Amino acid sequence: MHAHAYAAQSGATPLAPFSFERRDPGPNDVAIDILFCGVCHSDLHTARGEWQGVMFPSVPGHEIIGRVSAVGAQVSKFKEGDLVGVGCMVDSCQHCDPCKRGLEQYCEVGMTGTYNGPEQGTGANTYGGYSDKITVRQEFVLRLPDGLDPAAAAPLLCAGITTYSPLRHWNAGPGKKVGVVGLGGLGHMAVKLAHAMGAEVTLFTTSPGKEDDARRLGASHVVLSRDPEAMAAQARTFDLIINTVAVPMDLDPYIAALALDGTMVLVGAPPEAHKSPSVFPLLMARRSIAGSGIGGIPETQEMLDFCAAHGVVSDIEIIPMQDIEAAYARMLKSDVKYRFVIDMQSLKDEAARAA
Amino acid sequence: MHAHAYAAQSGATPLAPFSFERRDPGPNDVAIDILFCGVCHSDLHTARGEWQGVMFPSVPGHEIIGRVSAVGAQVSKFKEGDLVGVGCMVDSCQHCDPCKRGLEQYCEVGMTGTYNGPEQGTGANTYGGYSDKITVRQEFVLRLPDGLDPAAAAPLLCAGITTYSPLRHWNAGPGKKVGVVGLGGLGHMAVKLAHAMGAEVTLFTTSPGKEDDARRLGASHVVLSRDPEAMAAQARTFDLIINTVAVPMDLDPYIAALALDGTMVLVGAPPEAHKSPSVFPLLMARRSIAGSGIGGIPETQEMLDFCAAHGVVSDIEIIPMQDIEAAYARMLKSDVKYRFVIDMQSLKDEAARAA
Repeated sequence: MHAHAYAAQSGATPLAPFSFERRDPGPNDVAIDILFCGVCHSDLHTARGEWQGVMFPSVPGHEIIGRVSAVGAQVSKFKEGDLVGVGCMVDSCQHCDPCKRGLEQYCEVGMTGTYNGPEQGTGANTYGGYSDKITVRQEFVLRLPDGLDPAAAAPLLCAGITTYSPLRHWNAGPGKKVGVVGLGGLGHMAVKLAHAMGAEVTLFTTSPGKEDDARRLGASHVVLSRDPEAMAAQARTFDLIINTVAVPMDLDPYIAALALDGTMVLVGAPPEAHKSPSVFPLLMARRSIAGSGIGGIPETQEMLDFCAAHGVVSDIEIIPMQDIEAAYARMLKSDVKYRFVIDMQSLKDEAARAA
Repeated sequence: MHAHAYAAQSGATPLAPFSFERRDPGPNDVAIDILFCGVCHSDLHTARGEWQGVMFPSVPGHEIIGRVSAVGAQVSKFKEGDLVGVGCMVDSCQHCDPCKRGLEQYCEVGMTGTYNGPEQGTGANTYGGYSDKITVRQEFVLRLPDGLDPAAAAPLLCAGITTYSPLRHWNAGPGKKVGVVGLGGLGHMAVKLAHAMGAEVTLFTTSPGKEDDARRLGASHVVLSRDPEAMAAQARTFDLIINTVAVPMDLDPYIAALALDGTMVLVGAPPEAHKSPSVFPLLMARRSIAGSGIGGIPETQEMLDFCAAHGVVSDIEIIPMQDIEAAYARMLKSDVKYRFVIDMQSLKDEAARAA
């Protein structure tokens, strides 16, 4: 299948129109006409070659919502016309212990990213959702439940599951106090999801201007993290803190804010190391620092169903494909509430005009 | 009660004979004639003023085994002649949530150390086990089960419980792979206890000479941590790693050795920070870094009973009180297998000669 996309040809060149061949759907594949794709910070880091091992050309995008255009003969889960989603993974070994447990993101062979591969076996590149179509094996296709706005649901496939999974794993719910550090794409989903799960949510932010928004999204409390007294007042409070910040920071004030047996989960990886956390505060209340990466396919479906049941989607700003570089520039200034989503009709129209 | 001890008058002066008054046992107190006291690295750091907030004169020692010499009128748990132990704590608020849960070491008001206080309310200093007698409220006195050698049991009160507690909390047992980093006072107890709990134990050590000893103590495998290939071969292996090292180190090779959902528990606090751990390896397998401090009183009794049932004690070298500075010098060279224990008869004899 001939596909149109926007790609970076190198880390130094802006995203620009790019055409390539998608595989025709095999017996186990689902062919998807892409309607919307969310814009994740990982897209930007990859397109600009800021991470090691980026393969070019790079077509970013792993928050994909689309409509099934064709299915292979062995596909039982989907049919033409279904609204579906694709997240950060399109394949994994399917045989290791994590894969068998539905934790494909922790595949021991290594999951295949929706973009930047590597494909199982070949190590070849994969092209993501800044594209008009994609072909994905059925095991990695999610069903979009009725009632979720397709555009606003797109960011659930990365920002949503990346925060939902640790909230569930560390038992966020009624009676639990959950802190969320940072109110960006991931943070605003963490606030909404933790609130929907019944936890008492506190947002930690450096921005006084985000207080009203945080409360609207579900936070009961807002703490300005640059105010040492306000931070000190949180000591021994939180069962769980979801830290969405991906720049180097001082973790110690948040560790002090954890209750006995509390855990701070890092879901963002900074390009340089955080300041080394102090050990004594960990010892003094059996606290933990953990990491969590996206979520497995069964849990991603569970998250979508949870969001449909609770009316949770992302707060988005829809952009045309052609505005992606301007969107990246605004993301770098945290000037987005809270996720850009590309309307892929803009790409299809451009391709049609060019044809 | 007049007590004899060895004390440091400042961080710059060696331990030397010191006399002071112990309180006479009140209604809830147990008076103990000290028989043996283990020598912990914390003793050395405190006596030499290497930690902040050391109160002088300092009488170290928190691995105490003794015989009850008198009890207060309300004491029901002990009677004169009983063999008992006292560990790192002699008091706590007894009212906060951790205290009510038997986790007195995490008391929200702050536990009272067996030495260096601070006493509840007054903040006064406390004098530890390098002494001929001590008075302790009954809630903080442990029963020494039959069958445990009193001298070899002394280090169970700190080195034992400090490793037992995280092994239990993070579910060491049959089918679990447990790593232990460092074969000193804490490490050799961690190996013995994890083995006695039924886990498969691997010792990580920088010392090739410790391999035979590690196997004798219960390790099934020994990994030389300075061998990068040997470390890399451990990737994704361990459910739990107990890290007993209290000098700054690179934690990343051990994080890589953790399995999916594995936890590395730090039980030693280095005076300076560890190299900041990399975040990606935490994210890639939902790994955790945690801290754990000694153990609560109920769990300490459970540990002693477990040790009696499984024939576990510390490997010790008995010294007279007068040799404490030489023992410290050897500890700094890791020249002890694996814990010095002071025979307090040596102190009593010295006091009798001086009288």
